[in-house]
Amino acid sequence: MGRATERWAYLGPEGTFTEQAARALAAAAAVDLDPVGTVSVALDDVRSGRADAACAAMESSVEGAVPVTQDELTHGAPLRITAETYVPITFDLLARPGTSLASIRSVGAHPHGHAQIRPWLARSLPAAAAVMTASNAAAAAAVAAGDLDAAAAAPVAGARYGLDTLVADIGDVRDAVTRFVLLRRPGRPPAPTGNDRTSLVLSVGNHPGSLLAVLAEFASRGINLTRLESRPTRSKLGIYYFLVDADGHLADPAMADVVAALIRRQALLRWLGSYPRAAGLNDPTAEFATPTAYADAAAQVGRWQRGD
Amino acid sequence: MGRATERWAYLGPEGTFTEQAARALAAAAAVDLDPVGTVSVALDDVRSGRADAACAAMESSVEGAVPVTQDELTHGAPLRITAETYVPITFDLLARPGTSLASIRSVGAHPHGHAQIRPWLARSLPAAAAVMTASNAAAAAAVAAGDLDAAAAAPVAGARYGLDTLVADIGDVRDAVTRFVLLRRPGRPPAPTGNDRTSLVLSVGNHPGSLLAVLAEFASRGINLTRLESRPTRSKLGIYYFLVDADGHLADPAMADVVAALIRRQALLRWLGSYPRAAGLNDPTAEFATPTAYADAAAQVGRWQRGD
Amino acid sequence: MGRATERWAYLGPEGTFTEQAARALAAAAAVDLDPVGTVSVALDDVRSGRADAACAAMESSVEGAVPVTQDELTHGAPLRITAETYVPITFDLLARPGTSLASIRSVGAHPHGHAQIRPWLARSLPAAAAVMTASNAAAAAAVAAGDLDAAAAAPVAGARYGLDTLVADIGDVRDAVTRFVLLRRPGRPPAPTGNDRTSLVLSVGNHPGSLLAVLAEFASRGINLTRLESRPTRSKLGIYYFLVDADGHLADPAMADVVAALIRRQALLRWLGSYPRAAGLNDPTAEFATPTAYADAAAQVGRWQRGD
Amino acid sequence: MGRATERWAYLGPEGTFTEQAARALAAAAAVDLDPVGTVSVALDDVRSGRADAACAAMESSVEGAVPVTQDELTHGAPLRITAETYVPITFDLLARPGTSLASIRSVGAHPHGHAQIRPWLARSLPAAAAVMTASNAAAAAAVAAGDLDAAAAAPVAGARYGLDTLVADIGDVRDAVTRFVLLRRPGRPPAPTGNDRTSLVLSVGNHPGSLLAVLAEFASRGINLTRLESRPTRSKLGIYYFLVDADGHLADPAMADVVAALIRRQALLRWLGSYPRAAGLNDPTAEFATPTAYADAAAQVGRWQRGD
Repeated sequence: MGRATERWAYLGPEGTFTEQAARALAAAAAVDLDPVGTVSVALDDVRSGRADAACAAMESSVEGAVPVTQDELTHGAPLRITAETYVPITFDLLARPGTSLASIRSVGAHPHGHAQIRPWLARSLPAAAAVMTASNAAAAAAVAAGDLDAAAAAPVAGARYGLDTLVADIGDVRDAVTRFVLLRRPGRPPAPTGNDRTSLVLSVGNHPGSLLAVLAEFASRGINLTRLESRPTRSKLGIYYFLVDADGHLADPAMADVVAALIRRQALLRWLGSYPRAAGLNDPTAEFATPTAYADAAAQVGRWQRGD
Repeated sequence: MGRATERWAYLGPEGTFTEQAARALAAAAAVDLDPVGTVSVALDDVRSGRADAACAAMESSVEGAVPVTQDELTHGAPLRITAETYVPITFDLLARPGTSLASIRSVGAHPHGHAQIRPWLARSLPAAAAVMTASNAAAAAAVAAGDLDAAAAAPVAGARYGLDTLVADIGDVRDAVTRFVLLRRPGRPPAPTGNDRTSLVLSVGNHPGSLLAVLAEFASRGINLTRLESRPTRSKLGIYYFLVDADGHLADPAMADVVAALIRRQALLRWLGSYPRAAGLNDPTAEFATPTAYADAAAQVGRWQRGD
Repeated sequence: MGRATERWAYLGPEGTFTEQAARALAAAAAVDLDPVGTVSVALDDVRSGRADAACAAMESSVEGAVPVTQDELTHGAPLRITAETYVPITFDLLARPGTSLASIRSVGAHPHGHAQIRPWLARSLPAAAAVMTASNAAAAAAVAAGDLDAAAAAPVAGARYGLDTLVADIGDVRDAVTRFVLLRRPGRPPAPTGNDRTSLVLSVGNHPGSLLAVLAEFASRGINLTRLESRPTRSKLGIYYFLVDADGHLADPAMADVVAALIRRQALLRWLGSYPRAAGLNDPTAEFATPTAYADAAAQVGRWQRGD
Repeated sequence: MGRATERWAYLGPEGTFTEQAARALAAAAAVDLDPVGTVSVALDDVRSGRADAACAAMESSVEGAVPVTQDELTHGAPLRITAETYVPITFDLLARPGTSLASIRSVGAHPHGHAQIRPWLARSLPAAAAVMTASNAAAAAAVAAGDLDAAAAAPVAGARYGLDTLVADIGDVRDAVTRFVLLRRPGRPPAPTGNDRTSLVLSVGNHPGSLLAVLAEFASRGINLTRLESRPTRSKLGIYYFLVDADGHLADPAMADVVAALIRRQALLRWLGSYPRAAGLNDPTAEFATPTAYADAAAQVGRWQRGD
């Protein structure tokens, strides 16, 4: 008897970039993907056990951090990142089979999508009405239902709603990409692979030396930060959290050492998880931060303490 | 003959929070407010001289930095911040005069607005359809035109479109506030008031010590940072700019000193301006960073150099 | 049957400040004090097992570090400091019983002693010849032997050589004091008392950030340095070691942590020992550096690593 | 008519390493060298105008800092270093012409000199008495006067007192060298040569971050320290000054900048002078610390302040 099929929640509807990310994360595994109404619902499904995991957008090269994911990870009941993937963000003009470009009178998309396709629309379909929808995929669904002539949406939405791609890649930002993460209930992190990432939420006092002192803890242990995202508290401008991605795994002595130091300083709000890095390679570990360096130094101190 | 009336551009339509901010910034001055289609158009109007200034949202306590403003200030032709103001973000349910709550079948708002009123709608108007619009004010306009029953929008939109407030403050985030700035072509900054703010864009190399070294330049001169906002480049995840707000004015010796140090380190991408702080008070200047401390030290060094 | 009497070596002759220090360190214990010809001989006696311990001057408030002790501890076969004591340095004018001040024609002392009594001699015995001796105690011995009229030496030398104090405290430095240490072969350090000191030799690369990085390791763990003594290598100006005294005991987690970090950075040449502080009180341990803070943080990291 | 001959004071008697240093510093200039009884007298002669300059030992590769010079420069009426030179320290066995090695029964030297020749004496003249003198040159004078058989002293002492070198270089430290400085009354420093050194006395508070903050001021301006010498106050162990040698001249903008910063922080007790470096080459100036980098940054800040 095999392992039970997992259920993963994600922000629907079907045909979004998030679905595309979830499929990439699932890879060959048998996973039931369940579109839900909001990111918060997806995460609550994990917390309550209704889902095994949730796939959510973390940051976009165009829009920056995704506020709802950041805030849920910072303030909601704890979840852990166990995997990540990158999805290139491109917009296709989707329509029902047989539609000609010339016949299009209305184009639906989320306002953010419209912001990206406005130059193309102005050039190519200047007479078409721009119709706002709750998501790009919702626009594709409306096209399938006959309520709109065309939608600007992820390529996956065409397959999902039985639409054709009239024109591919009509957005005006080249190389846009979004990072998605897989979130699970707290548990043992994935085993280290040698090319891992650790995500943290730091809570830094608002006097000038505070952030400096916290960053120095990473630098003094040779730990590279690949991301430092400030995040205001939800209701007060001027007070910030920092979402940090750092090279390495909590199982690495240098990472365990810096995390312990942050705990002692009361600067660590959350450890969000350690997981394999999906793209790029960590810088080589500094000689003074390798597991061997840690083990040798600890052994030496122990010998001195005992008088061996 | 008086001073000519200025023309200020802002992201329309009329009835948005941005209009409210522009009115607050104009105060008693005679200013023609000109709603335009995008933030970028508003800023280009200033650059080209079609407008004297533009009012734009800079950061929200809920959504964080406003990407388009950040990117325009970082990458577009240079503009300078000369003033700032804070606008509380509240949503009113607006409808044509005489409309009863029970009769509302459709409620329009920008998807971000819908995100904030969803709990209220679910409780109070569970049967109403949520209609997406390009802005909350566009929803108010649609209500005025009879295309929608109600809109969730800024209080100012009611007055603007002849609508009544059926229910005030239906959003689910308390104390949400957005900071708006006034942008002008480069020129002499406003005179120091003693409670000023300086905004900068830093470009920091991606090895761990770089940000540390840059933050240390501020700390060693006793300069407090009230905001540190990482911002990815538009097309590459993992490389960041930092938008920084610091206490003080470029006319202050300590601020001039740190700005010069950042220039020497090639860490300063942009000086965005020095301008009166709209809320809160700067921390008192450290004794070693006062204008007197700077003048005394420079005088002493000069005497030693000359052998006086 | 009692514990065997220990033999301690010290720089003779009898009647020096070093003997005074050794007596203070021995306190009530039965110790045979053995004066030897040089500090190096005293330490070699410990290394070879001919002596159980050696008492040596470490630093003087007037002359600074004692080079031979510093160099032996840095470069010689390893020894450990297990105790310290402070001896006030005062010079008495010693002569054979019955000698009158007016009859004194020669005053012996080490050249350093002469440097300190020169003002008094010029005022009080302007006609007396200043005779140099290998130590102040050697001058006292010469007085006892009838070769000199008077000696400027430690009060203890009077008793030792049967001399009278003609005038007490004739040196021109008030409150001069020398710190002496007790040195033993490597072994288990004395148990922590809660008010301990740890001595280290650091080897710091000669680029500007090196010392900074090393000092930051102490500061980030809240460890106070009570002494930082640079010491050139024996034959090259411009390359330095640093002899450091720090508050705390190697058995304290924060001290063990910083010592391990220094080992990893290859910045620790020697751990010279942890031992009770003889004067003054350590600053209270910072909250983030207490044993409890260390234990709690390590426990939390362990739980996360295991997925508990 | 030429420039009047200067008078330089130095610690006598004639025939010391200090005389050798003074001759090197005088080079071709006509200088009257005046041996005086103590370093303090030499410096007071300069302060009072009785001498134009004084030559004094600053640090030795064997003994470290010279306390009396350090203390005079730190606490006495201000003097400035205007030149430096290095003298190799070697000991010759000097005797009256015609003396055979076998006939030597007494060898004079300062106790420090005896410490260095003890191994040679033990091997080569085990029966000779070690006689202490106030200086090595005083031993040479005593040999000339017939009071001693031989002296261990600087080679220059042989010529000075008409003695022959029986054996050259009998000390046991290879490559020992002492740095001497020329001290003058405060005035315009020597013009920068491009390879200069600046000497400072720092007064650093005794909490752990203080020294760190001060060293960071140098590091952040790319200024290399070639020497960092802690120095206790004269009467209190545990409180330190730091004598610092740094690459560069007070006329260099980066050095002027760090000196001003130290003044503002009240960490600069004394500027001891800027003068040509006698040996070795400064590291190349970091790109961000060149005069051009300073001038360009200051010009840019000025343009922004004025709104150009």
